[in-house]
Amino acid sequence: MITTDPFDDDKLREECGVFGIANVDTASAVVALGLHALQHRGQEAAGITSYDGDHFHSHRAMGHVAGNFDRDEIIRALRGHSAIGHVRYSTTGETALRNVQPLFADLSSGGFAVAHNGNISNAEKLRKDLVRRGSIFQSTSDTETVIHLVATSLYSTLIDRFIDALKQLEGAYSFVCLTSEGMIAARDPLGIRPLVMGMLDDAVIFASESVALDVVGAEFIRSVEPGEIIIVRDGKIRSVKPFAATPPRFCIFEHVYFSRPDSIVDGSSVYSVRKAIGAELARENGIAADLVIPVPDSGVPAAIGYAQESGIPFELGIIRSHYVGRTFIQPSDKVRHLGVKLKHNANKALIEGKSVILIDDSIVRGTTSMKIVQMMRDAGATEVHMRIASPPTRNSCFYGVDTPRRENLLASSKDVDQMCAHIGADSLAFVSIDGLYRALGEAARDDKVPQYCDACFSGDYPTPLTDHAKGSDSDQLQLLGEHLV
Amino acid sequence: MITTDPFDDDKLREECGVFGIANVDTASAVVALGLHALQHRGQEAAGITSYDGDHFHSHRAMGHVAGNFDRDEIIRALRGHSAIGHVRYSTTGETALRNVQPLFADLSSGGFAVAHNGNISNAEKLRKDLVRRGSIFQSTSDTETVIHLVATSLYSTLIDRFIDALKQLEGAYSFVCLTSEGMIAARDPLGIRPLVMGMLDDAVIFASESVALDVVGAEFIRSVEPGEIIIVRDGKIRSVKPFAATPPRFCIFEHVYFSRPDSIVDGSSVYSVRKAIGAELARENGIAADLVIPVPDSGVPAAIGYAQESGIPFELGIIRSHYVGRTFIQPSDKVRHLGVKLKHNANKALIEGKSVILIDDSIVRGTTSMKIVQMMRDAGATEVHMRIASPPTRNSCFYGVDTPRRENLLASSKDVDQMCAHIGADSLAFVSIDGLYRALGEAARDDKVPQYCDACFSGDYPTPLTDHAKGSDSDQLQLLGEHLV
Amino acid sequence: MITTDPFDDDKLREECGVFGIANVDTASAVVALGLHALQHRGQEAAGITSYDGDHFHSHRAMGHVAGNFDRDEIIRALRGHSAIGHVRYSTTGETALRNVQPLFADLSSGGFAVAHNGNISNAEKLRKDLVRRGSIFQSTSDTETVIHLVATSLYSTLIDRFIDALKQLEGAYSFVCLTSEGMIAARDPLGIRPLVMGMLDDAVIFASESVALDVVGAEFIRSVEPGEIIIVRDGKIRSVKPFAATPPRFCIFEHVYFSRPDSIVDGSSVYSVRKAIGAELARENGIAADLVIPVPDSGVPAAIGYAQESGIPFELGIIRSHYVGRTFIQPSDKVRHLGVKLKHNANKALIEGKSVILIDDSIVRGTTSMKIVQMMRDAGATEVHMRIASPPTRNSCFYGVDTPRRENLLASSKDVDQMCAHIGADSLAFVSIDGLYRALGEAARDDKVPQYCDACFSGDYPTPLTDHAKGSDSDQLQLLGEHLV
Amino acid sequence: MITTDPFDDDKLREECGVFGIANVDTASAVVALGLHALQHRGQEAAGITSYDGDHFHSHRAMGHVAGNFDRDEIIRALRGHSAIGHVRYSTTGETALRNVQPLFADLSSGGFAVAHNGNISNAEKLRKDLVRRGSIFQSTSDTETVIHLVATSLYSTLIDRFIDALKQLEGAYSFVCLTSEGMIAARDPLGIRPLVMGMLDDAVIFASESVALDVVGAEFIRSVEPGEIIIVRDGKIRSVKPFAATPPRFCIFEHVYFSRPDSIVDGSSVYSVRKAIGAELARENGIAADLVIPVPDSGVPAAIGYAQESGIPFELGIIRSHYVGRTFIQPSDKVRHLGVKLKHNANKALIEGKSVILIDDSIVRGTTSMKIVQMMRDAGATEVHMRIASPPTRNSCFYGVDTPRRENLLASSKDVDQMCAHIGADSLAFVSIDGLYRALGEAARDDKVPQYCDACFSGDYPTPLTDHAKGSDSDQLQLLGEHLV
Repeated sequence: MITTDPFDDDKLREECGVFGIANVDTASAVVALGLHALQHRGQEAAGITSYDGDHFHSHRAMGHVAGNFDRDEIIRALRGHSAIGHVRYSTTGETALRNVQPLFADLSSGGFAVAHNGNISNAEKLRKDLVRRGSIFQSTSDTETVIHLVATSLYSTLIDRFIDALKQLEGAYSFVCLTSEGMIAARDPLGIRPLVMGMLDDAVIFASESVALDVVGAEFIRSVEPGEIIIVRDGKIRSVKPFAATPPRFCIFEHVYFSRPDSIVDGSSVYSVRKAIGAELARENGIAADLVIPVPDSGVPAAIGYAQESGIPFELGIIRSHYVGRTFIQPSDKVRHLGVKLKHNANKALIEGKSVILIDDSIVRGTTSMKIVQMMRDAGATEVHMRIASPPTRNSCFYGVDTPRRENLLASSKDVDQMCAHIGADSLAFVSIDGLYRALGEAARDDKVPQYCDACFSGDYPTPLTDHAKGSDSDQLQLLGEHLV
Repeated sequence: MITTDPFDDDKLREECGVFGIANVDTASAVVALGLHALQHRGQEAAGITSYDGDHFHSHRAMGHVAGNFDRDEIIRALRGHSAIGHVRYSTTGETALRNVQPLFADLSSGGFAVAHNGNISNAEKLRKDLVRRGSIFQSTSDTETVIHLVATSLYSTLIDRFIDALKQLEGAYSFVCLTSEGMIAARDPLGIRPLVMGMLDDAVIFASESVALDVVGAEFIRSVEPGEIIIVRDGKIRSVKPFAATPPRFCIFEHVYFSRPDSIVDGSSVYSVRKAIGAELARENGIAADLVIPVPDSGVPAAIGYAQESGIPFELGIIRSHYVGRTFIQPSDKVRHLGVKLKHNANKALIEGKSVILIDDSIVRGTTSMKIVQMMRDAGATEVHMRIASPPTRNSCFYGVDTPRRENLLASSKDVDQMCAHIGADSLAFVSIDGLYRALGEAARDDKVPQYCDACFSGDYPTPLTDHAKGSDSDQLQLLGEHLV
Repeated sequence: MITTDPFDDDKLREECGVFGIANVDTASAVVALGLHALQHRGQEAAGITSYDGDHFHSHRAMGHVAGNFDRDEIIRALRGHSAIGHVRYSTTGETALRNVQPLFADLSSGGFAVAHNGNISNAEKLRKDLVRRGSIFQSTSDTETVIHLVATSLYSTLIDRFIDALKQLEGAYSFVCLTSEGMIAARDPLGIRPLVMGMLDDAVIFASESVALDVVGAEFIRSVEPGEIIIVRDGKIRSVKPFAATPPRFCIFEHVYFSRPDSIVDGSSVYSVRKAIGAELARENGIAADLVIPVPDSGVPAAIGYAQESGIPFELGIIRSHYVGRTFIQPSDKVRHLGVKLKHNANKALIEGKSVILIDDSIVRGTTSMKIVQMMRDAGATEVHMRIASPPTRNSCFYGVDTPRRENLLASSKDVDQMCAHIGADSLAFVSIDGLYRALGEAARDDKVPQYCDACFSGDYPTPLTDHAKGSDSDQLQLLGEHLV
Repeated sequence: MITTDPFDDDKLREECGVFGIANVDTASAVVALGLHALQHRGQEAAGITSYDGDHFHSHRAMGHVAGNFDRDEIIRALRGHSAIGHVRYSTTGETALRNVQPLFADLSSGGFAVAHNGNISNAEKLRKDLVRRGSIFQSTSDTETVIHLVATSLYSTLIDRFIDALKQLEGAYSFVCLTSEGMIAARDPLGIRPLVMGMLDDAVIFASESVALDVVGAEFIRSVEPGEIIIVRDGKIRSVKPFAATPPRFCIFEHVYFSRPDSIVDGSSVYSVRKAIGAELARENGIAADLVIPVPDSGVPAAIGYAQESGIPFELGIIRSHYVGRTFIQPSDKVRHLGVKLKHNANKALIEGKSVILIDDSIVRGTTSMKIVQMMRDAGATEVHMRIASPPTRNSCFYGVDTPRRENLLASSKDVDQMCAHIGADSLAFVSIDGLYRALGEAARDDKVPQYCDACFSGDYPTPLTDHAKGSDSDQLQLLGEHLV
């Protein structure tokens, strides 16, 4: 049971997870395990690139890690002692294989492979400049921009070229790169997206979340720091900090929903934070009822926290099927409306005649909330109160998270009462922004220098948004509409 | 979150689920939804046969319902107002498509399709007799025996031939059959396997569990009774009871593990029964500890019951990945031992320094229990107590459940203390057989006429086991070793 | 260059080829080669069944032998010293895998596999009787009838049961059967379809054409005689002739078109016979012209014969692409008419300003002839004379050849002058029926006891046609409309 | 029957064919037909890129045109009035999809797609320079070099950039390019590889051979001239000749083997030239024998020419199977030697007791010749004389033809007598180089300024071979060893 919901259309979606390991036998086998543990960060495609001392080897595939990277012949072909990998959820229609990472290029300095979690918010502007000077892009990915910046940099060493490239970027990035000389990890100056370092005997690992270290049996060392570049070469680890120091702005939604509950993110246990948010919710917006029911699976930790704080029993009032992927399409209008129960079914014998408090992590479009409330009523609930373990989600993310257009966010156009009416609940409450910061151990949000990036709630974006500025001509990239085999 | 664990190698496995509907538009679309809700009863293959008034149409496939029966062209080809379907987990190596149900034959009376949940315990003897008389078998399935008995019966009407066939069978069966004249449901005289009837407007439905009625929006009517045959023809429902009445022996393990917690089985809520077993466990074998932790997902309801009865907090101490299928094969010896964490990972921040009570539904081989106990210790648990929501599983099932050979059942050769030492726990306790019957509303087990089939615990089999008798020459069937495309 | 044209829509099509070998290492590998040499007799599907002394192994696939039976893992799984195989072209829409041969059944005497070339003309009547008595059919193939007749025969030995079955059959058959006791070959009393025997060291081979013996390096021994059953067991060969002797009626069209030109069929070289037909044509219907041009590839030997007899030079005036399969579908109405040139293109530089004689083996629908004549005119031919190396094809075949319905045979409704006008030639002539018999070494056709089956030309069918009789209720079989994976 | 043998391991292989059409509805459908007619020039992969006025669309696939580009959904997705296509046979192990043409890049001037027949003999040197300056290559194809030269050219218009790029190239090329402004065709200054122009109503077509014009129903206009660039824009055709004029050196092997016999190449009918070579052979190296037998299919026209000149009858003494692809692998050592007969089988009844003259187009490794000679002897030939319709092939081609390494060319290390002994013939003769030129209408080869590129026979290469010069460090390119899905 993990809190990150793999297939929900009504959730924000993390776009990526990265994993790299240097100096180990069968590096690609370890990467495959690590990516599997990060699968919730990107279910659409996965890739691994390895280096065997002479050649780079790469395999990229649509679909999950399992079913692709657990095949012996694939792993055996990905030879070498160093490898990096990537899982991806793409936001645009461009789901072509060539956008699947790691991206690779044969530079004059040798092979260079990159896996990226985040989003470069001036990528389109940079791309136009590069094309004008003769660079030819293979993908529509913002990540490729970085490679061309490295390729055309006038500096001489690869590290200098890489730093030269980073300095031209805006936005959020956690990079893991593989070169013929070693492995490089880098995190943007605000540290928006997570990246941790671990050790497995002599091998160095970089991963988006600590749970990937657990799964491969590695020891957690520390987070890569905001603005830090770490270079692993010839068994040595070197740290470089080419940026001026600024207060970090870690993504607060990693705590609310993205990260696995068994991860330690930014120094805190995700599970504990979520329980603490549930307890805040109970204190801020408590209400009398018979049962506390999580919307599975992401609402479970907050529901436990709410139940423990309130003393109202925690019960499984909604049963979720293990077998629901995003692809089950009801083949007839007649049966289309039945679909919702495929995924969630009310535990009728439990619900009937009871007043219930439903706990969910967030409301995005509100479609799921509406169905779940109705399902509770159909099962005989006398009252249905909805409590949400985050503030209203009102703004799009430009840092590597798939958010619906602003107008499709229920909270962008409705206040809490209107939202309550919309989803049909007897009452609705969200944890306050300060309540959320309290659950994270802060006294309150520092509105002058917020401790986190909470733009999705506050609209307070920590970087310029060049490509998204009004009047920007950075239209959607449309490279060759290639059919994939 | 459902209690039936889809991929666990260390669980007993239900072999089948059946679903049929008569008198509805796009019957096959409804069957696909119903089968999806029964997917936990058989993940290996699925099939649907429909009848459009002139022709029968069938599609059978290896794999899940989703990915096969949510394709529009498949459902559209399965034309007709009546259809039956089947999900299957096979116990033998014979995973060929021709064993996937529904089985179909073109009899002199017209087409005849059968979906079967259960196991005919004298099928091999019957088969030998039939082959001797010129019948040619297409499959190695015990179910095909029934079809040949119908084909060669000397009675004249199809129903009489079907009853003639049933009277020759031993063992457990819930059948749903589709003929050119209507639909037939039948349950063995002891009612070992479940079968319920529902209505969706004018349409009649038969399904292994009530949850399949919920998912298609149908109303639960009643269980098909042990020994009852129900015939749906020309919009009329007729009940026939050709067997002498005997006390029923419903499978008790459906309550412990097989059925979904949101099903009403045999008149009881599965979720409530499981919570009640957890409460019995707490009363019978309570122990002081900091946390009650379910082994996800099947241990969750019993853990909630235990926690509520004992007052010890319920916590998610083990996080389970949504993405673990049975096929992720670690491609290198080096990393093979890491596999266990792919599926279950300890919530270290929670566990560290705490004494824990683990709740699981059963112990089969003990392999998972051993790993989970060790995982708790590695995460820093000070004490690990294991409590099991069923008595020790000591005997094989011959009624449609995949049980390991007796010698591989941990409880067949070890007493509770030895099992505790084997899995490395500080203490281990099982609910008593009478405690289990109490959770089901009985005062205790009636040893003379047990209210349930509990042979897996007691060794008390309610039918003869002709094919399994000592000295029987009923060797494993080995039909053509065909390669499937 | 072989005379049997693999993909032509305007040709009659042989439905099957068979091959079996007993007593050799890797029997299935030899069968794969043999089937490959017989591929022109059936391009739709192929299958091999082997016996390893304990078990039967089978693999059947849609498509060609190459691409299926040249895969190492397939051949290795088809273990054993004896194996039979089949290539198939099916006439009906029933292209399901379950109709692909060899068919296999597990009889009380053990496994029994059958490969059949021909057609049982009372199969539907026999089938109805068998179903009435309780037999369940797996396929819609006429061949399965034989297996059920064997299974239900009251005789005791397998050979007696097999003879008992054959005696109930009408029509054309060359069977190769594999049992746990040995291999059996059988040919119908009239010897309508071919079947030869060869030896490869100690191994005995049966094959539809001698070319399959050449390809596997075996020695041609003799034809299996009409009405003969040959049994290979324990290294011994036994011949049985259970039928009263009758004058044979070998299929004359095997010489005209079906067999490969490098085969020895019925004692004659197919290539020599075709050249002799061409020479007869030149003598019977000679005409002055500049060039003799074969319609490739099947018209080539007759064109060489015609050119040598007439002294007019043989030239490649039509170039045929190697790459045209039956599946290239022009994707737009705009370009659909261009399709004909994909397959055949005029050698314009040669044709321009010349009078040409086109030689083809037969005219079925006439569609190709019409296009080819037009193509010659477009290329600048001054005169186009068509000469056909067989008499007009006026009647359907019921002995294992795919013929269009009678009304679609051009010759069934038009005389030669009308056909000439229809295809647009300056003149058209067919070889006479006596000319054809002369090319085969006869003085003329013996109209009382014809030396061959020439029903397609003469309408003189050598057997009753029970299933096709007027008033017969033997409607098209329609078993389960199963989707294949 | 075409002379270019699709699957022979013992033949030189043309690497490519190109086809483009501008200004027609469903351009991609026409391109698919045209590529199909050019399939013999490259059987390994095929691709089409179209332009619909707004976007480029591309589909590239391993395998034949049929099976890929006859699928309606593929063609419909390749929208637009202009399209180019390519068929490819690759010489190196790099068979990855990313090397399949047309190659495409998004330049600052818009999309730019290229299809190339030929080989750039200084591509590796150019590539190194480009990478040094920051260009990132997507493929290992020499063709990509041209695209980067265009992208980084300092000229401003696309045509000037393209000419700037061409001027840096050495070697052989026939290009067809598609841009957002129009279509561009270009042929190298020596005109080594063919390229013709045709019209289909208002549409302009470029194709490697005239047969592709025939197949789409277009009119042949003229060859693109050596060194000519033709631009089709806004319905207008413009010709540019940026190179100084030099005597052309068309590839003589196109006449001997590569082109289809029904093509008009360089002003001559390929079929007539081949017959003329056969006649030269008969005059130069006539010998008494019973039969003239072509090695099918490429030896047929020369054999007809030989037979007509000598008066010895032309006969099909070798029958070739239509069904032999390059992939049929004999699965057992036991049967491996049988393979040769799968493809070619002696017409024994014809050969026995006769002296034969075999006619083939060329001898490359000699492996096929050796087998065929032996096959004739095994069939009973009394004498076997081999005559070859080209001079001995002694040198590798660097202009877009797959030649074995020089040491594997039989003629590179043996004189004619040694070759005769090697293949086991009674006599062997090749047409003389002057005989070959005579068949092409020349009086003789002009050794000072040869009329053709005949480097494979003479070693006289018409361009520098920068990448192949001794001491060149242009090692084999080894980009990412990517696995293809």
